[in-house]
Amino acid sequence: MVQRYNSKKIQELVYQIYKGYGFTEQESREVAHMLIYTDLIGIESHGVQRMSMYDSFIQNGKIRVHNKPEIVKETDVSAVVDAHFGLGQLNGIYSMRLAIQKAKQHGIGMVTTRHSGHYGIAGYYANMAAEEGLIGLSSCNSRSAMLPTHATKALVGTNPIAFAMPAKPNTFIFDAATTTVPQGKIEVYRKLGKDLPALWVAKDGETPVNDHRDTQDLDALRDLDSNVGLAPLGGVTEATGSHKGFGLGVIVEVFTAILSLGDTSNEITPDDLSVGPCQSFTAIDPAIFGDSDAIINKFSNYLQAIRDLPSVPGKPVIVAGDKEAAAYQDRAANGIEIDDQTLAEVIDIAKRLGIAYDSYIVH
Amino acid sequence: MVQRYNSKKIQELVYQIYKGYGFTEQESREVAHMLIYTDLIGIESHGVQRMSMYDSFIQNGKIRVHNKPEIVKETDVSAVVDAHFGLGQLNGIYSMRLAIQKAKQHGIGMVTTRHSGHYGIAGYYANMAAEEGLIGLSSCNSRSAMLPTHATKALVGTNPIAFAMPAKPNTFIFDAATTTVPQGKIEVYRKLGKDLPALWVAKDGETPVNDHRDTQDLDALRDLDSNVGLAPLGGVTEATGSHKGFGLGVIVEVFTAILSLGDTSNEITPDDLSVGPCQSFTAIDPAIFGDSDAIINKFSNYLQAIRDLPSVPGKPVIVAGDKEAAAYQDRAANGIEIDDQTLAEVIDIAKRLGIAYDSYIVH
Repeated sequence: MVQRYNSKKIQELVYQIYKGYGFTEQESREVAHMLIYTDLIGIESHGVQRMSMYDSFIQNGKIRVHNKPEIVKETDVSAVVDAHFGLGQLNGIYSMRLAIQKAKQHGIGMVTTRHSGHYGIAGYYANMAAEEGLIGLSSCNSRSAMLPTHATKALVGTNPIAFAMPAKPNTFIFDAATTTVPQGKIEVYRKLGKDLPALWVAKDGETPVNDHRDTQDLDALRDLDSNVGLAPLGGVTEATGSHKGFGLGVIVEVFTAILSLGDTSNEITPDDLSVGPCQSFTAIDPAIFGDSDAIINKFSNYLQAIRDLPSVPGKPVIVAGDKEAAAYQDRAANGIEIDDQTLAEVIDIAKRLGIAYDSYIVH
Repeated sequence: MVQRYNSKKIQELVYQIYKGYGFTEQESREVAHMLIYTDLIGIESHGVQRMSMYDSFIQNGKIRVHNKPEIVKETDVSAVVDAHFGLGQLNGIYSMRLAIQKAKQHGIGMVTTRHSGHYGIAGYYANMAAEEGLIGLSSCNSRSAMLPTHATKALVGTNPIAFAMPAKPNTFIFDAATTTVPQGKIEVYRKLGKDLPALWVAKDGETPVNDHRDTQDLDALRDLDSNVGLAPLGGVTEATGSHKGFGLGVIVEVFTAILSLGDTSNEITPDDLSVGPCQSFTAIDPAIFGDSDAIINKFSNYLQAIRDLPSVPGKPVIVAGDKEAAAYQDRAANGIEIDDQTLAEVIDIAKRLGIAYDSYIVH
């Protein structure tokens, strides 16, 4: 069952837990803000729900609590950060702050980060730049999951592209895997016992997998010897644009693993603690091109012209960020949605760390 | 009928024609190189075949032969260029050279160009940067053609994203419309009388258009009052990722029309000579992140690992740029492919300009 909980109180509990792991006060505040923001904008799969996964990584040493990100190469407009396998969220926040600082000084900042960890939703980092009046981009790679066009085995990660830019009334936030859907979406369909829509999963290169039971061994998706994989955005045939999603996935690999000389999708294996995903963070100050207000107004007007288009009855046209803004307003007022299993997992962690959790769990 | 012609000789004829229009010798050489390169890599729809369209634009004043691009705002890493409705190709070459120069000096160069014209394939400009050892990106907007998810009328252009980066044995060149297919592909299917594959064209927002006769009035795609439009990459439903292609199209609009304060897709109308498409040009020096050779080697190895994957029988895995490299090798040796109608159009232009064309048309 899913219930609503006061987001401020849960955020405080998350803070206590991360402090309990040994992160500093500031680090713990930052992680808690990031995770609860994710729940507030309605992406429950990547917020508090992920705490149990991070907990297991902290336990097995994949996430190293005391390691700090380090700048290993830097110019006015760029940096390479080695994250030394610290918490992905903290590396992301550190690296995007660096990109923002460079953009404010020199117009553009591009940072690429290696030896990082799972950093949650890419859109969070892109939005950090938008909150400062800048354009923000962020991407990450992951272990092999996507079927390159015609291939019968996966290579290339799910490799999302996030882009954020200030606009009225809502910040434009685009955040999308370069596969048709990320892996979590398939896990949800399996739990619900629903058939998979077309263009999500394929086997043997081109055969659609629609029966969720054929993805039963989801680990197969992660196994280079499996013949099952996620379809790129555009499906598995050139006619529907498969090569486009595949190509975009490769481009993400360039900005994350190739430029940082980190680990590419095919080098990341779940059990090897000496490899980890890579991420990229770019901030661009619109003021280097023209008057920021004029640019943001022009963009807002363009987005409004799109929203104002006639549409399929009952399905209004929305632009990236609208759904998240509505979810935020709702969750901030009425609480974030947490399912009972996730809540039980969080309570278990709190208990183990000796945190009195009762007062934080409030509807 | 399609025949092969000596590319060097045809390039010389194109040069003569552009000089005949009044372009300078250097400008004419540049345009001829760009158009013939397009044919050499096998994208015949955008090479010599486009000369008749450009000819009509030169005749009606949409392309202003003597107007030069002007930098209207500039920083170390950025510029806004007003193209003053000169030839799109020349503005593209000028603007990408500017981006390359900035990248060589400061690591990154981002140029956005307004009041331009149709500039051919975006990949040409991205590849200009790759030929200098840099990463190149280019995009352009166009008049409304794409159906935003759920919308029954088109808005957002076909808005391609091109990305090029040096790699061995072939430069990686990705060049893809953010619609499933560009408009030209539909024209080809209409000429062939073939049914359209799924996810290409829709009407009333969600109804697939498969019968090519339903796109008979292709101008309808260009008419804001039409209920027909091109599907974004990912189709017209969220389940297949429609919102992703749509969002990427909007991002292209930002880097082209919004940042340059030029004309957005919905402001571009074919008959208004005071508006024109916008383009973006970015160059990034990999050396600001690490040793360029190490980066290019890592990228080449990654691409090779993808090519080496097992695949659907008879369909090898290729990466962006492989098809173009093979076509180039073939066309450079055996001639570029020109259909009789296109050849007749080019001869008509040459005749009108008083150019003795016979010696240039050689198999």
